[in-house]
Amino acid sequence: MLKPYPFLLLAAGLLANRLTAQTAPPADKPLLGFSPATAATEYQLESKFDTQLKADNLRQWMKRLAAHPHHVGSAYDKANAEFMASLFKSWGYATRIDVSYVLFPTPKLRKLELVAPTAFTASLTEKPVPEDATSGQTSEQLPTYNCFSKDGDVTAELVFVNQGIPKDYEELARRGIDVKGKIVIAKYGGSWRGIKPKVAAEMGAIGCLIYSDPKDDGYAQGDVYPKGPFKPETGAQRGSVLDMPTYPGDPLTPGYGSTKNAKRLDYRTAPTLTQIPVLPISYADALPLLSALAGPMAPPDWRGALPISYHLGPGPAKVHLQLEFNWKTEPVYNVIATLRGKELPDEWILRGNHHDAWVNGASDPLSGMVAELEEARALGELVKTGWQPRRTIMFCAWDGEEPGLLGSTEWAETNAKDLQKHVVAYLNTDNSDRGFLGVAGSHTLEKFFNQVARDVPDPEKPMSILERRRASDLVNGSAEVQKDARERADLRIGALGAGSDYSPYIQHLGIPSMNVGFGGEGAGGEYHSIFDSFDDFTRFKDPTFAYGVALAQTMGRCVLRLADADVLPFEFQNLSNTVAKYGTEVKKLTDDMRTETERQAKLLAEKRYEAVSNPDQPLLAPKAQAPVPQLNFAPLDAALQKLAQSAQAYEQARQNPLPADRQKALDQLLYQAEQQLLSTEGLPRRPWYRHQLYAPGFYTGYGVKTMPGIREAIEERKWAEADEQIQRTAAAINRFAGQVNQAAATATPKVL
Amino acid sequence: MLKPYPFLLLAAGLLANRLTAQTAPPADKPLLGFSPATAATEYQLESKFDTQLKADNLRQWMKRLAAHPHHVGSAYDKANAEFMASLFKSWGYATRIDVSYVLFPTPKLRKLELVAPTAFTASLTEKPVPEDATSGQTSEQLPTYNCFSKDGDVTAELVFVNQGIPKDYEELARRGIDVKGKIVIAKYGGSWRGIKPKVAAEMGAIGCLIYSDPKDDGYAQGDVYPKGPFKPETGAQRGSVLDMPTYPGDPLTPGYGSTKNAKRLDYRTAPTLTQIPVLPISYADALPLLSALAGPMAPPDWRGALPISYHLGPGPAKVHLQLEFNWKTEPVYNVIATLRGKELPDEWILRGNHHDAWVNGASDPLSGMVAELEEARALGELVKTGWQPRRTIMFCAWDGEEPGLLGSTEWAETNAKDLQKHVVAYLNTDNSDRGFLGVAGSHTLEKFFNQVARDVPDPEKPMSILERRRASDLVNGSAEVQKDARERADLRIGALGAGSDYSPYIQHLGIPSMNVGFGGEGAGGEYHSIFDSFDDFTRFKDPTFAYGVALAQTMGRCVLRLADADVLPFEFQNLSNTVAKYGTEVKKLTDDMRTETERQAKLLAEKRYEAVSNPDQPLLAPKAQAPVPQLNFAPLDAALQKLAQSAQAYEQARQNPLPADRQKALDQLLYQAEQQLLSTEGLPRRPWYRHQLYAPGFYTGYGVKTMPGIREAIEERKWAEADEQIQRTAAAINRFAGQVNQAAATATPKVL
Repeated sequence: MLKPYPFLLLAAGLLANRLTAQTAPPADKPLLGFSPATAATEYQLESKFDTQLKADNLRQWMKRLAAHPHHVGSAYDKANAEFMASLFKSWGYATRIDVSYVLFPTPKLRKLELVAPTAFTASLTEKPVPEDATSGQTSEQLPTYNCFSKDGDVTAELVFVNQGIPKDYEELARRGIDVKGKIVIAKYGGSWRGIKPKVAAEMGAIGCLIYSDPKDDGYAQGDVYPKGPFKPETGAQRGSVLDMPTYPGDPLTPGYGSTKNAKRLDYRTAPTLTQIPVLPISYADALPLLSALAGPMAPPDWRGALPISYHLGPGPAKVHLQLEFNWKTEPVYNVIATLRGKELPDEWILRGNHHDAWVNGASDPLSGMVAELEEARALGELVKTGWQPRRTIMFCAWDGEEPGLLGSTEWAETNAKDLQKHVVAYLNTDNSDRGFLGVAGSHTLEKFFNQVARDVPDPEKPMSILERRRASDLVNGSAEVQKDARERADLRIGALGAGSDYSPYIQHLGIPSMNVGFGGEGAGGEYHSIFDSFDDFTRFKDPTFAYGVALAQTMGRCVLRLADADVLPFEFQNLSNTVAKYGTEVKKLTDDMRTETERQAKLLAEKRYEAVSNPDQPLLAPKAQAPVPQLNFAPLDAALQKLAQSAQAYEQARQNPLPADRQKALDQLLYQAEQQLLSTEGLPRRPWYRHQLYAPGFYTGYGVKTMPGIREAIEERKWAEADEQIQRTAAAINRFAGQVNQAAATATPKVL
Repeated sequence: MLKPYPFLLLAAGLLANRLTAQTAPPADKPLLGFSPATAATEYQLESKFDTQLKADNLRQWMKRLAAHPHHVGSAYDKANAEFMASLFKSWGYATRIDVSYVLFPTPKLRKLELVAPTAFTASLTEKPVPEDATSGQTSEQLPTYNCFSKDGDVTAELVFVNQGIPKDYEELARRGIDVKGKIVIAKYGGSWRGIKPKVAAEMGAIGCLIYSDPKDDGYAQGDVYPKGPFKPETGAQRGSVLDMPTYPGDPLTPGYGSTKNAKRLDYRTAPTLTQIPVLPISYADALPLLSALAGPMAPPDWRGALPISYHLGPGPAKVHLQLEFNWKTEPVYNVIATLRGKELPDEWILRGNHHDAWVNGASDPLSGMVAELEEARALGELVKTGWQPRRTIMFCAWDGEEPGLLGSTEWAETNAKDLQKHVVAYLNTDNSDRGFLGVAGSHTLEKFFNQVARDVPDPEKPMSILERRRASDLVNGSAEVQKDARERADLRIGALGAGSDYSPYIQHLGIPSMNVGFGGEGAGGEYHSIFDSFDDFTRFKDPTFAYGVALAQTMGRCVLRLADADVLPFEFQNLSNTVAKYGTEVKKLTDDMRTETERQAKLLAEKRYEAVSNPDQPLLAPKAQAPVPQLNFAPLDAALQKLAQSAQAYEQARQNPLPADRQKALDQLLYQAEQQLLSTEGLPRRPWYRHQLYAPGFYTGYGVKTMPGIREAIEERKWAEADEQIQRTAAAINRFAGQVNQAAATATPKVL
């Protein structure tokens, strides 16, 4: 489900698998959680693991799993689950398929017409290309649609709203344009797609179209498929519009598992469905609609790459949008394969990727899924040589991720208690191609992951994947990123927002999580279209599967080290450093808003906006904003200080040799520390999200908001709430620091 | 010739003439150069002047002068000169037409073909539109061409070079692309057009095409003509490519007047002609050429609004470009109308605008020309009421500006000695439309001009043109501009680069000059095309001529105040403030280049560029740069300090009542001070440019470079030259400060 990495837009091609040219890391490097002796053993194990990995396995499995469309409810979705279960079994895993029953609407009727000033009927059809073997499987393909749009039949004037995020509507208001009773057309981009109909409905629109502008996702990016990897004119992006920033998973079972007989809401009243009908369209279908708009020109940065003058409307373009869906309940098949730990079987390492797709899904999700399969197979081979993990390892293949993290969320909600009790960490991948390491996750695992990335060779360059990423930060990063890359020993990993199956684990259950992938050299326009195929992937994404193998090496090391460490390799000073940065950011955000609010108030009082407004194209003054008060950040500052001290205390304590009888207690304190960052009330207006440090933005969707309670209250100018949330976040950090101090005490030998 | 103001891109339309709604400024405001008593008289005179101004005169004259194409050498060009001369005569001016004889090439043959991979022949023809009365005068129109391109007949592979400025070629080099032996195609924009073939030739290209991309100048900006004001697909921008940054004027008579029998260079060896053939084309003609390019994608910010993937080439597109010109000598007719001063006839105020156009030239240049005519007529009316100026006023209508400031430059060179002896200031206008005041000039006149702008009402808003400009600076300006607008009493006027007839006066002769116009609400794509017509202007630019009248009010006040002031209204503290800012800028430029050079050297040493390069689309490391040394800015700092002191000394001195016997001496010291800023050697590699504070950029053309000797040496990393130029500029500032001190002494009553 994850969008491809945006930081570089380059097409990929063939390259030699250079893995053999790589050299293993010196075995004498220190390893967090291991003694020098156990580290040496671990390194030997990892070398054996590497030698097992075969790019051709990834290729064969992708070809098999992507051979037919395999969305939720399709025959091939079930077949893939059973095929993977049989593989896990054959490798010696205790394997089961856990089934949940979820709402999964599919299109019954889709109609989009321009009814004025001229007539045009949108094709709503992606055109297969002969160069792509599976693109013609039309009878098995889901039509282009946005899943969890409500039914609707609306006719109204059209308004172009750029990306359809809140600030776009402020620009429209300054041009005297109101979308009440109108149908809006928004570009993809700038937010997760589900935000667009949500905000449009809040603004009073009665329908929403989302199109892919060729500037962002088409010929302006490069040659289109099949000549190049970019979106052809009939390509359209399917995708969920479930209000996941409120809660993901089955909309009918909020916060609990959608087991066979679970109590369910009526879908007509389910809070996470859209309030208005919404449909994704291609730029071929968007062109006649946008061309028919009049009214003011769109602001320069709103204009796309279609050969037209982008006007805002409303009208004279008038459109008719009619949507009806089959509101069916479907089974989702989560494959769970377990390798029991020898010494600490009650400590579980979870490794997951989803297997369902919108169509054939070679890149999304199979590029990550086949790496996970190869990791599992390689571990199976190690077991044959006599190795057994100290802790329990569970490989998961989730179903129903695309419609809204359905499989992973329902499984997490069903097994919440056990998971919070046993799970050490959740390690996620999803679509991945070529180029540069991308990683986000719990900062308690940052140092641990840096050691992993340090030890994995890059397939293209004679260096580790960590060093290649550092080079990218130094050459292409912002000033802040460059500074980090120069001055910081460890790569600062990102924070988790939304977009894949880690969300329920970290944000709802407080389980330390990571998400990893490669990107930047495999950009294209296949995302959620019939062109995300084996042919496309092997032509443009990762043709040799060299980065697929690198991903297996990376995630395999994560699993092995977490499973076999003497003490779990958590570290808190990096976290403390990053959380302090969040604190600085929210203060600066407040100060910057105050300065800008004062500047604007002055300009308003002086009537400067009227003075510059062009009589022929009036631009109204922005709405006056109340002054930004001083917030009380003292509780946060105190908590951050306590956090820093506790992190240092544990850093000292963990230098000591640990008595065997305290290892288990210490492990538990460490992996459950993150749960202290949850608040029982959860975030304002979305209690499902309980983590006080990480959440997807309520108005951005994918994009993470760190310290979300505080940050979003400030962004939305809810000053009283901001002060409350400062308290609540400070309390969570204090609880966390308290547990870190306990861990430090536990790790410190008693003085007699 | 000036490009329309880019700071706002809005189409204009009809609006009521609100002049009557405006109120005159309180007559008690102090007036630089006047006593309270004489100021009162001056204000009365200016009110009488205002009442004379009639928008309908501007309209009728524009209609008459734009009725036919009137480029150099055309019958209508001569007819317009004679018509205006007759007008000036009828208003009581001693009027003459001064003729120079200049090289003016026109197309004999233009051929542009795509010869591979497919065949296409460019139309090179602008399509007339029925809604535009003069656009169909095809037999009288000059074809689309770049004047002073050399003849040529070349066939080669095509390379897309973005805007064709030096940094674009650095990007190409990083992609392994060399233009040696190739034909380049560049977008308009980013520099004056003449820079593009100049740089292309330096890089080894053998031909150059310049096209108007619809992103900058076409449908992406708004509806195209005649529905809207923007460039239709066949529109092309004519224009000179004479190497004016080396020297403007007749290329055959560098530095001296091109009188009938002047010694002339052979045009084949004239240094300011292009080294390679160059032709401007429409986006309709560019589309097939750009579509036929392969090779790497152009960098994202190079891509335009054509519905294609912008590739760089070279090839497979191969083009044949053949150009032949008639290398004729033509007369240019400068109209000079004089109103002799009563008291100080040897002090001349020059007011000018050009009258030649590329085609019908309603906006460029007639919008400014008709304002000047109305100013002259109104003064004539004042004379009838018994008024006579203290100083001599000369109205000039220049010919041959479009091909390269030919008329004004040759006249300035012919009369150099007299002009340096007598001219107080040169006041220029050119194309002007609607919206916001734009002004650049000698900063010795900044405070003077602010007082003028303070007293002219804006036609659209109930405030002065100065206050409306301040509002624009506050709402839309950069942080620096906003700060100035808040904290500075006076609007900081711009510095003069190139682009209109002030260039020889300020940059070659050191005569204080100003250039003034309105813009921001009349944007369009008519520039230098057959669509710059009376119909276009009255539909989209300044339909009621309200801003034309405002321009007449502004320039009329400049003329009247300079002509009648007790003492010439020069002021030096504003200049000192701005020149100090230039000093800070060139230091910061050096420091920033040093930091970036060090950063890059480090990345090169660490091989970071190789590390991030995509094997499928290699991006080579940038060329290593020698370290940036420390420059000795001490002489400049000392000179700036001396300047500040002299400015303050004059400020104090001018408070004293001035004995009548010293007025003339003081005037002369004041208006000739600017000549102290000239260096006898001129700028490196272009001795014609002698001003040490202002020059057009050698590699930007229009864009001014302040402290050009220093700044360009730094930009081009000529460190020894930079140190020399610091000395030379410091010396000029010291000479200037010396003369300001003399003025101060002269203005100070002798103590007995």
